[in-house]
Amino acid sequence: METNHVITTNSRFLYGLATHHRLKSKGMKTLLRNARILSLEKDFSIQEGDVLVEYGAIKKIAPKIKEKGVDETIDCRGGLLLPGFKNAHTHSAMTFARSYSDDLPLREWLFDKIFPLEALLRPEDQYYLSRLAILEYLTSGITACFDMYYNPLEMARAAKEMGFKAVLLGTVTKDRESVAEMVESYHEINDGNPLVSYQLGYHAEYTCSEEILEELSKASHKLRCPIYTHTSETYGEYEGCKERHHGLSPVEYAESLGLLDYGGGGFHGVAFSKEDIEIYRKHGCSLVTCPGSNAKLASGIAPLTDVLKAGVNLAIGTDGPGSNNGLDFFYEMRLASVLQKLRLMDPTAMKGTDVLYAATVGGSIAMGLLDACYVKEGQRADLVLIDLDRPNMRPLNDIANNLVYSGGKDDVRMTMVEGKVLYLDGKFNVGCPLEEIVSKAEEVTSRLKSEYESSHR
Amino acid sequence: METNHVITTNSRFLYGLATHHRLKSKGMKTLLRNARILSLEKDFSIQEGDVLVEYGAIKKIAPKIKEKGVDETIDCRGGLLLPGFKNAHTHSAMTFARSYSDDLPLREWLFDKIFPLEALLRPEDQYYLSRLAILEYLTSGITACFDMYYNPLEMARAAKEMGFKAVLLGTVTKDRESVAEMVESYHEINDGNPLVSYQLGYHAEYTCSEEILEELSKASHKLRCPIYTHTSETYGEYEGCKERHHGLSPVEYAESLGLLDYGGGGFHGVAFSKEDIEIYRKHGCSLVTCPGSNAKLASGIAPLTDVLKAGVNLAIGTDGPGSNNGLDFFYEMRLASVLQKLRLMDPTAMKGTDVLYAATVGGSIAMGLLDACYVKEGQRADLVLIDLDRPNMRPLNDIANNLVYSGGKDDVRMTMVEGKVLYLDGKFNVGCPLEEIVSKAEEVTSRLKSEYESSHR
Repeated sequence: METNHVITTNSRFLYGLATHHRLKSKGMKTLLRNARILSLEKDFSIQEGDVLVEYGAIKKIAPKIKEKGVDETIDCRGGLLLPGFKNAHTHSAMTFARSYSDDLPLREWLFDKIFPLEALLRPEDQYYLSRLAILEYLTSGITACFDMYYNPLEMARAAKEMGFKAVLLGTVTKDRESVAEMVESYHEINDGNPLVSYQLGYHAEYTCSEEILEELSKASHKLRCPIYTHTSETYGEYEGCKERHHGLSPVEYAESLGLLDYGGGGFHGVAFSKEDIEIYRKHGCSLVTCPGSNAKLASGIAPLTDVLKAGVNLAIGTDGPGSNNGLDFFYEMRLASVLQKLRLMDPTAMKGTDVLYAATVGGSIAMGLLDACYVKEGQRADLVLIDLDRPNMRPLNDIANNLVYSGGKDDVRMTMVEGKVLYLDGKFNVGCPLEEIVSKAEEVTSRLKSEYESSHR
Repeated sequence: METNHVITTNSRFLYGLATHHRLKSKGMKTLLRNARILSLEKDFSIQEGDVLVEYGAIKKIAPKIKEKGVDETIDCRGGLLLPGFKNAHTHSAMTFARSYSDDLPLREWLFDKIFPLEALLRPEDQYYLSRLAILEYLTSGITACFDMYYNPLEMARAAKEMGFKAVLLGTVTKDRESVAEMVESYHEINDGNPLVSYQLGYHAEYTCSEEILEELSKASHKLRCPIYTHTSETYGEYEGCKERHHGLSPVEYAESLGLLDYGGGGFHGVAFSKEDIEIYRKHGCSLVTCPGSNAKLASGIAPLTDVLKAGVNLAIGTDGPGSNNGLDFFYEMRLASVLQKLRLMDPTAMKGTDVLYAATVGGSIAMGLLDACYVKEGQRADLVLIDLDRPNMRPLNDIANNLVYSGGKDDVRMTMVEGKVLYLDGKFNVGCPLEEIVSKAEEVTSRLKSEYESSHR
């Protein structure tokens, strides 16, 4: 394997792993037959065989499995089975803002559009809006997302009902959500349901007071849990932080408050110095890059090659639909690579395989989903099946690079979460019809827009 | 309409329009019902209605069409009908090189991989390899491509057999293909078949002698036809040209030889000065940007906002699958916009609507397909139907921006060329099974690779 990503068993990331008491009731038994398998456990080699899925986990992988009592058999011939993509940074409920505020200056976008619209959101709106995002995740093979938003119980409800996996992230700021509320959510949501877990976070340095961050640091030390935040998204934020905090960058400032003592990580990292990278390495933090959002908002390009070279875990996120706008992991992967090539004016920068690793294993690590990294016996069955017979996936000169540089959502044949097929051949299986999810999201969006427009007349 | 693109009837582009004697035999009569129609003729407004297609053309558009003798009715409810995307720069036959030479330095990629492999190509290989690319074009709603490669009759054969539209482009260099051969192809291919036409081109300034370009200029003046070429793809090429030609840029040099006197245009234009843009404007030339390829090869970012501001026609191309690697117009559109935002560090740069216009009407203009610009009575029926009920296309805050910033290949319900449905709901209708096209392309690729590898042992 030509990457620097190594998972050690005593990794600090383990502090962040929510204990998943798996469902012990008799679940579906599914046999995935005749697949090419990109396990990603050791390298990018591909083996052929069958995969038996039981109780939401991968029970057996072998060239030919004969098994009794199988509920469902899926012929994967012509397909590639790999770990599902992990969308390691998003704000799912922001589907309402998609294409409502494009091509605007950042401040106007945020203060004149996004914040006023968000202020009108009711908690149950988030449930309806998040469901739409979950459907979209499934279409590009995303099996789990790291969702940063208020009222996490609403996204948790959507994920559990639909069978999707969500790591919910607290978002303390000086105006909304307290550390005490987050600690409550931490215990409430990390209750053993395999689909949802919860981590502690703060919105950003520039939206929190030092008192709040000190309180958060104490909570993190008490729970021995990691902390996540938006960090260094723009050069302005980076310079502003230095002015506010005696020359400390957002990462240095977080370290000074003990916020990195149990790992965790940051989203964006566009303005990310060599010193910041070294701090992340030292604390076992992950950087979650959001190339689509950073490009669309003209924030810049994160120094991903330096991050990888230092051995820092890299993950990928779409960011929210308000800024990006689509939630397409194939786009994010391809963009992550080509932006590094442009940044360095060097076509050898950022290999396709490094991107694929970040999109899958790197994301799992960042999100504390260490049991959903690989196609491997004992791991959770969070899988995606890619149709290798689509014209864009041919010829099969290099399957991993085909995925990153030629892949698209129409190649996704199946997305499986916790052993359940949620998306197959373009159709959803999430307990609620597509039409209903779409129409409820449209209804909420219309109400928000009409309330916003009437208050801005 | 908020763009600068205006087509005037006495446009110089008209010089380049190959005369299309349409098939007069009784063709299919197809009724497209209940569509939302983004005609693009005047602005980005959308009307609802039916579209009647006959003899390969759009015969009638009305809120409700009652017509006898319809052969085929397609219910477009929930869909958006718009002009097909025009891939204005590609080398279709280069599918053999996809993912065979990624993440390499440009010279190594070109001289150690691409050129030696190309030297092994037999003409009929190009037919088999181009068929694979055509399938891929259809999956992202591309209805025509501007194909620059040797042996254009092979791509012409593939396009005609499959029902796809191709504008073939001669590629004179000092080593391969002569101007006389191109003139012969010009007459041979522009024979009235509505699916194929031919234009004159040269590979690039740096691969042609001045004698050849003078001969080409004469041919263009005689035929009153435009000339196309790779131009200013890299800063190295731009500076090299200035050294070779008394300080003239590739565009200035082309102008000095009379190569722009009948319009035409250039591919890439990364190193494109204000003076170059003014020359293009003056001669009615089109710039075809290839953001995916320029990013992957780390060539840079073309100054598209300056090009648009000057009123130069802008089109978009994927470039070949050897460099890009996927041929996905949704990726190209989104990238075209966000790279401008990054280039200028300005999120307001390059609106989604400007990109959508370039991908459709701009491409038609660049390729001399002026009869396939709009969804309009009398225009050719080269259309794409987008599924607006996919989760990524919702909510419908702004349909044009949804297409550019959230669209993906899985949204393409139908691709129609010259009134014939070639792709519908993920299935191809091109006169040959997918499996056969894929396996022939794999067979050719394997042979090329094994010949290349045995000669490089």
